Amino acid sequence: MAEPVGAAIVGASGYAARELIQILLRHPGVKVAVATSRQDERLDALHPGLTKRIDLACEPFDADRIAERAGYAFLALPHTASMAIAPSLRERGVKVIDLSADYRLDDAQVYEDWYGHEHTDAEGLNSAVYGLPELFRQKIPSATLIANPGCYTSASILGLAPLVAEGLIERTGIVIDAKSGVSGAGRSPKLNTHFPECNESLSAYSVGRHRHTPEIDQILTTASGGGDPVEVIFTPHLVPMDRGIFATIYAKPLGTAVEHDLIELYRSFYADSPFVRVVTHLPATKDSAYTNFCDITVRVVRGRILILSCLDNLIKGAAGVAVQNLNLMLGAPEATALF
Amino acid sequence: MAEPVGAAIVGASGYAARELIQILLRHPGVKVAVATSRQDERLDALHPGLTKRIDLACEPFDADRIAERAGYAFLALPHTASMAIAPSLRERGVKVIDLSADYRLDDAQVYEDWYGHEHTDAEGLNSAVYGLPELFRQKIPSATLIANPGCYTSASILGLAPLVAEGLIERTGIVIDAKSGVSGAGRSPKLNTHFPECNESLSAYSVGRHRHTPEIDQILTTASGGGDPVEVIFTPHLVPMDRGIFATIYAKPLGTAVEHDLIELYRSFYADSPFVRVVTHLPATKDSAYTNFCDITVRVVRGRILILSCLDNLIKGAAGVAVQNLNLMLGAPEATALF
Amino acid sequence: MAEPVGAAIVGASGYAARELIQILLRHPGVKVAVATSRQDERLDALHPGLTKRIDLACEPFDADRIAERAGYAFLALPHTASMAIAPSLRERGVKVIDLSADYRLDDAQVYEDWYGHEHTDAEGLNSAVYGLPELFRQKIPSATLIANPGCYTSASILGLAPLVAEGLIERTGIVIDAKSGVSGAGRSPKLNTHFPECNESLSAYSVGRHRHTPEIDQILTTASGGGDPVEVIFTPHLVPMDRGIFATIYAKPLGTAVEHDLIELYRSFYADSPFVRVVTHLPATKDSAYTNFCDITVRVVRGRILILSCLDNLIKGAAGVAVQNLNLMLGAPEATALF
Amino acid sequence: MAEPVGAAIVGASGYAARELIQILLRHPGVKVAVATSRQDERLDALHPGLTKRIDLACEPFDADRIAERAGYAFLALPHTASMAIAPSLRERGVKVIDLSADYRLDDAQVYEDWYGHEHTDAEGLNSAVYGLPELFRQKIPSATLIANPGCYTSASILGLAPLVAEGLIERTGIVIDAKSGVSGAGRSPKLNTHFPECNESLSAYSVGRHRHTPEIDQILTTASGGGDPVEVIFTPHLVPMDRGIFATIYAKPLGTAVEHDLIELYRSFYADSPFVRVVTHLPATKDSAYTNFCDITVRVVRGRILILSCLDNLIKGAAGVAVQNLNLMLGAPEATALF
Repeated sequence: MAEPVGAAIVGASGYAARELIQILLRHPGVKVAVATSRQDERLDALHPGLTKRIDLACEPFDADRIAERAGYAFLALPHTASMAIAPSLRERGVKVIDLSADYRLDDAQVYEDWYGHEHTDAEGLNSAVYGLPELFRQKIPSATLIANPGCYTSASILGLAPLVAEGLIERTGIVIDAKSGVSGAGRSPKLNTHFPECNESLSAYSVGRHRHTPEIDQILTTASGGGDPVEVIFTPHLVPMDRGIFATIYAKPLGTAVEHDLIELYRSFYADSPFVRVVTHLPATKDSAYTNFCDITVRVVRGRILILSCLDNLIKGAAGVAVQNLNLMLGAPEATALF
Repeated sequence: MAEPVGAAIVGASGYAARELIQILLRHPGVKVAVATSRQDERLDALHPGLTKRIDLACEPFDADRIAERAGYAFLALPHTASMAIAPSLRERGVKVIDLSADYRLDDAQVYEDWYGHEHTDAEGLNSAVYGLPELFRQKIPSATLIANPGCYTSASILGLAPLVAEGLIERTGIVIDAKSGVSGAGRSPKLNTHFPECNESLSAYSVGRHRHTPEIDQILTTASGGGDPVEVIFTPHLVPMDRGIFATIYAKPLGTAVEHDLIELYRSFYADSPFVRVVTHLPATKDSAYTNFCDITVRVVRGRILILSCLDNLIKGAAGVAVQNLNLMLGAPEATALF
Repeated sequence: MAEPVGAAIVGASGYAARELIQILLRHPGVKVAVATSRQDERLDALHPGLTKRIDLACEPFDADRIAERAGYAFLALPHTASMAIAPSLRERGVKVIDLSADYRLDDAQVYEDWYGHEHTDAEGLNSAVYGLPELFRQKIPSATLIANPGCYTSASILGLAPLVAEGLIERTGIVIDAKSGVSGAGRSPKLNTHFPECNESLSAYSVGRHRHTPEIDQILTTASGGGDPVEVIFTPHLVPMDRGIFATIYAKPLGTAVEHDLIELYRSFYADSPFVRVVTHLPATKDSAYTNFCDITVRVVRGRILILSCLDNLIKGAAGVAVQNLNLMLGAPEATALF
Repeated sequence: MAEPVGAAIVGASGYAARELIQILLRHPGVKVAVATSRQDERLDALHPGLTKRIDLACEPFDADRIAERAGYAFLALPHTASMAIAPSLRERGVKVIDLSADYRLDDAQVYEDWYGHEHTDAEGLNSAVYGLPELFRQKIPSATLIANPGCYTSASILGLAPLVAEGLIERTGIVIDAKSGVSGAGRSPKLNTHFPECNESLSAYSVGRHRHTPEIDQILTTASGGGDPVEVIFTPHLVPMDRGIFATIYAKPLGTAVEHDLIELYRSFYADSPFVRVVTHLPATKDSAYTNFCDITVRVVRGRILILSCLDNLIKGAAGVAVQNLNLMLGAPEATALF
């Protein structure tokens, strides 16, 4: 077998980085060669679960040192931090898979409107490929910059793509009522994710202004083949569990919706996607937790189409899909290291 | 002070019964005089938390013995069991507050369609008053049979009543995406409520066929002042927490919706209701857990009205509202024993 | 009835303060007259669950203003902060119930050894009464400064007091393996209490150096009637639940231990204590959660005595016992507002 | 590569079976060829998480059909059920790894005393090898019947083995205070594992009579090289989390205990064991959850030795160690499929 390619984990202290490392440790074609963090510690000090699994110390970010050792860099950084360094890596020939939001929106103005910062890497924004393999599998292999999708976004888009692609539903008024485990909020302690605050509680947050909204709109509009923009009403909720996203989606069909036909449509649409499971039972987030699967089913209730879509926010919603993208870029089987 | 009235708890082994007893132990005007259960045990054996709180043994149901000692009976029974015994109590002059679904639906046929059993107490069905004090406060004092509302139902109706009463929204296509803690499923162990199954998981259940649906339709239709029936799309979810219901409601306004005006409308509508808190922040179920409050806020997102409504399913959704009804029947202050 | 006495809550933003306020709102003889916090907000902004319950804004600490309106002050402050202000309140005639550790240890040197700060209020240390009513019920009524016990401490001491008082066990080598819900760690977000870190996990912490150790030693030595110091091996664990302390205690009997006799001893020892329940079943923390009870049972296993003792850390371990102390100071029934 | 060996999962509906299948799906040398269950369903109907992972229907147990297709059978059955069928498999040349307790105790009388059933397979009892690779790695390769250890047992024994092997501690009075996640109780719904009962609660159970007690005694006595029997005081607790066992162990040293030396002893003792991590930080169950690791540290507190030992009850405590045993029997690297 060929020499494994080197991978850099930029921003190694968070949960998505930890999951990435765990997945890559099973990947026969990849070696985690560099980890960067402002915390100058060993990886197993940052993540005790990695003890005896990897012998690597974090170092400060240095594009040259990464380029020496790694062909691919995963950026597990907050937004704005990614676009500050991605160009320096790409200039040096390092392909970038960015887990932040910096390259997901086509339009710099929309980015500025929702993220409150000017976008500083127009070239990157233009050349980035949106890394949702189920929709953009053809474009990913040749990309040098991947905008890895948001977790809510993946659950929502995979749930709606077949319907918008076929033009079966109204484009506005689509309700996405989404529920997320707490790891989706990241690893920085805050009051709302302090255990005694969010445990045994369910709440909505960022109602009407969550930043995954324009991302969902944009990709669904693309998936619909253009025309009037798709516009969703997206409501995220915080659920007292570690992992998992559950999107309950309500759409108004343009014609008469038949449950059995819709299931067949979804099965056909995802026939080549190893990580989408179109099921007929009602899924639970636990079935896809700790996996790269997205489980989807469809129901018709009082004339509306309900789609239930769920996935693990840290795997299929972050680290797993990032490796799926890497596999496509490497020309490796899409599922390598992901079962 | 007058002699406290005797209360009977029929079906004392479940969670709602336990909550009822705890509330009534604080009530200066009531004495828990009888508890019945098929389990022939002391109350503190069934509910260890009641140790040193009440010295009472359960007995088999006997209408005569209840009538001797109690003026009011709370039925904490499964549906069909309530209607099998309520007449015998009412014949003997015992007023009944039924926590089951047996007397909630006006139409015996609708009951049969959704519950799969013929309704056997037409007289009770006709004379029962729906025990949601916020809507039917005037009718409750003179009632002899109260149909205590369902937990999902109360959260949903309180969230929507001001809008349908004012005729501000479309009557169909209303989406109620509801999330419940596990105690809502009762105390009988089943696989789906076995800890390792439902912990760390979120799932939908009874999609399109949950029995609170016709109850919500019916009461909202009444609240709307008649006309075309209100028809909701109700989706319940199971959340890994003990208590709490959170209803995220999406309605299409008939005119232009203004957030501030809606908040004012709700405040006015519930001005005399001590247990509805119309708030401007986004509520969490934890704020109303272990209380008789229902917390509600309203938002306008992309032209739709969102209502967030939450309450404790065992208190405001069951035992607390039952005591609220009792207070109204007794002529006591509505909030007695409920703070 | 007499005019209610005014109470001040000093440090109103934490969990124990919130519980205190909720209990005092039910107390017929007390009015919450002052709340202080560095966060200059309304109480219901700090604690949304208090909405519609109390109409009071926090103010900065001012001993004069407290003395004008309150006869009693509860200090819900971190250690060192209490001793910095308690003298100013007591000088003005305000009686103090301190929920911090500042007045719990008799010996200023021991305080300095374990807390790392010099003790600055020797007079307070000398005059403070340790506020565990089950052991010191006689001394509390006349106290002007109460050192409210630690949560682990109460569970441990109540579990061991009958045995050490009767001289039935070896004084060293007593193992207290204690498990606590996360609210015991306070309301300040930290990494170890960040939901995705501590949820679904159990860990030990502060092994061999937890600050409740010398407090347990001291009070048990007192309870033993003097002689050689009692010395415990105390190991705290963090459990993914909101509330509750469970102490599993292992002691070596000096003679032959008989389970039935021990249960009788405990029942007799706590005959006048309304909030200790000596049970024969194995207790669960849930049975005493949200109550002021401490549940205790005793077993003999392979010649060792096992004591299982549990309570709610925020109620019986903090706010509830504080009100129990207040009641004794007021000459009110010990259980007022506590059921 | 050689043809993979066939494996049978006997009793496929439980949690350990599900974990086994997930691990074996990653094993290059094994194919899950048979699954048996009284529930005549597809594996992915029993375990929705296995959807798209394995295409196999359960069948009734039939020793002949297993022998045709499988060289190894994992028995994931309740005690007594294993010994009822193990002989029939071994007669047909199928090697057996039994996850029940049936072959763990050397002495049929001890089995009868603790399990309440006569032991019916004396030959099996004699020839079974206790499948704890860290202690019995030499005996496992040639075994035809493996008694896979209990989950509490593994955590306890791995925590104590170095001390008893070196004769450093007193043999009696060893306290093992153990805490387990709820999946350890199996998949059959019962009241004590019903979510609203055990969630947000911690309790002890089977105090003084848990069946892992004689197993721990026996293996530690063996590990001590004989002499007086080791006798532990074992107290299990139920913790509201899915997975994980945490054993806090208290032992009295015969001489002076020095923390650093003990850590070195443990490191040396487990130098060849890939799945024991001797750490110096205080471990959390979460670090080893979903892995085959056992994390151990040692402390000296007031002259006692404390050992903290934790593992995932379903992996290292059941399915993972079963595959570790299989690997040793196959002559494959011990860690195959286990990272």
